[in-house]
Amino acid sequence: MSEISAEKLDDLIARLDKGEKRAVARLITYVETNPDFAREIIKKIYHKTGKAYIIGITGAPGSGKSTLTNQIASKFLDKGLKVSVIAVDPTSPFSGGALLGDRIRMKSNFNNKNLFIRSMANRGKLGGLSIATKEAIHVLDAYKSDIILVETVGVGQSEIDIFKSAHTTLVLTVPGMGDDIQAIKAGIMEITDIFVVNKSDHKGAGKKVAEIKGMLDLAESFHIDENTHSIKIAKMEGWRPPIIKTNALSGEGLEELIEKIAEHKKFIEESGLKKRRLLFRYKHYVLEILKNALTKNFEKIIFTNPKIDEFFLKILNHEEGINPYSISDDIMREFLIRYL
Amino acid sequence: MSEISAEKLDDLIARLDKGEKRAVARLITYVETNPDFAREIIKKIYHKTGKAYIIGITGAPGSGKSTLTNQIASKFLDKGLKVSVIAVDPTSPFSGGALLGDRIRMKSNFNNKNLFIRSMANRGKLGGLSIATKEAIHVLDAYKSDIILVETVGVGQSEIDIFKSAHTTLVLTVPGMGDDIQAIKAGIMEITDIFVVNKSDHKGAGKKVAEIKGMLDLAESFHIDENTHSIKIAKMEGWRPPIIKTNALSGEGLEELIEKIAEHKKFIEESGLKKRRLLFRYKHYVLEILKNALTKNFEKIIFTNPKIDEFFLKILNHEEGINPYSISDDIMREFLIRYL
Repeated sequence: MSEISAEKLDDLIARLDKGEKRAVARLITYVETNPDFAREIIKKIYHKTGKAYIIGITGAPGSGKSTLTNQIASKFLDKGLKVSVIAVDPTSPFSGGALLGDRIRMKSNFNNKNLFIRSMANRGKLGGLSIATKEAIHVLDAYKSDIILVETVGVGQSEIDIFKSAHTTLVLTVPGMGDDIQAIKAGIMEITDIFVVNKSDHKGAGKKVAEIKGMLDLAESFHIDENTHSIKIAKMEGWRPPIIKTNALSGEGLEELIEKIAEHKKFIEESGLKKRRLLFRYKHYVLEILKNALTKNFEKIIFTNPKIDEFFLKILNHEEGINPYSISDDIMREFLIRYL
Repeated sequence: MSEISAEKLDDLIARLDKGEKRAVARLITYVETNPDFAREIIKKIYHKTGKAYIIGITGAPGSGKSTLTNQIASKFLDKGLKVSVIAVDPTSPFSGGALLGDRIRMKSNFNNKNLFIRSMANRGKLGGLSIATKEAIHVLDAYKSDIILVETVGVGQSEIDIFKSAHTTLVLTVPGMGDDIQAIKAGIMEITDIFVVNKSDHKGAGKKVAEIKGMLDLAESFHIDENTHSIKIAKMEGWRPPIIKTNALSGEGLEELIEKIAEHKKFIEESGLKKRRLLFRYKHYVLEILKNALTKNFEKIIFTNPKIDEFFLKILNHEEGINPYSISDDIMREFLIRYL
């Protein structure tokens, strides 16, 4: 898998165009394996993308994300749509594999020809949605998926990253789980398009809805700076995130949730928010490409250029005036300018 | 805290030189808060560092890291040494705060004037040891700590990062915990100087020792490429990681562990490995400084330069030949060269 010929890639893309699931799987594997392959693949398929509707689903562990994702997929499949699911698993060596059980629940849909399911590790970025995931979404988009569901484990960075990729972001909470309220405070609020209180048959569902309502009221009283380049830029007036109670196991509340997703889709299209979100999303994507490219160059300079060691040996002497920051300035001057 | 005058900084550093704990705490807070402060502080203290011995302690949640860290600290305090502890907590909004209880266990040592304890979040890098932690280690080094213990939660990236900062890295496992064996396979092996099987009174301690032994035997049969710039470069022949059984609660095995740490210290000094590790460590530190500096510049260009939007609006049209990679090449040409 260390090389991929242009012919082979063209063949895979021709098979992708024909809707072959095995070609999709192979292309995603290439995207995951090697940034150079990813670059070639995206260059060849990007003009075929932009039609899929991307729905992000996130929330605390144990909130029933996988079951809900399965139910949402079923609803869209029932409408005759082509649905793809990406589940982002953490790569922690200490917890790896714990999510396998969840995937099995999706078995009921497994043989549907309109459904494609893929688990992805998040390469090198714990809790974050890696660039490979963004690129896999593009492969599924070129595969002519109507709906792409991206399910991530709720551990901070991934919620914010999902927002950068998704058109509509659902955040799940469950009654009686105190921690996630803190999470909502910590920024979840700004990225949520629809709140889902799952396991609504559990005690405290009404209380949870009231808590979220209270926070939304509070949030509305703040002015959001449209000029900042922070995540807040994509938040606009005119959409107050609804709070939907669901029971993913029984299917209760699912119809209402699907309706709200459609409503949100209409809203972002008509308000112009969709375009602004896409701009924001691609800015972050390109930022990651640039960062990765330069990191690779830095690593090459720092770890393989024989002249660099004299800089570093100076650091080890702990002399006044020579330190990691002064060395980084020296390297910038001596090497990078020449490189670019 | 948005500004810091040169006089104030000089005053804090004078107080650091006198051994004032409050000045240490303040400097670490500055380092955590603002990369520009960190740069100024490191520039001013770096020549005072390089004398502390840094011990990394990592392992799966529940393996008793905090208790063991406390015990190790006590042993060094008993020898009349000055000991500092940094505990790196994950910033996950979903699990934040869970470690507070652990810190309380260290209470027994709390009033010792030779002991300094600090919890740190890992700014923006889930599971990773952020640059701020590396810089806090330098503050504690300039504070003339003899020993710096860095305790991290075992979630992947942090173990590798700890290795980049520590002279001796301890990896904890406990009997009956199956997951961490997988972790060992996944790279822990290469970063461990001493294996600690904690809770050695629990059933299966002998089996755990045998498992690690088996893996060490297997690892020894592989050739390790000295020329790669990967983590493997710092691994040398001549040191086979010992496996120490401890019971952190009762203190059993602690003496032996302290002896092994001293042995490893002697080994890395005499073999020249210490210098090579330091080189490796500072290369990664400088790499991070460079990456952070350029990321900041990229963000500025991408999010605030008004000319940049025309590039991105082209992406949204999904025309052939225009895609995130081609745009990143354009931006590199048009903006970065001019910037540097």
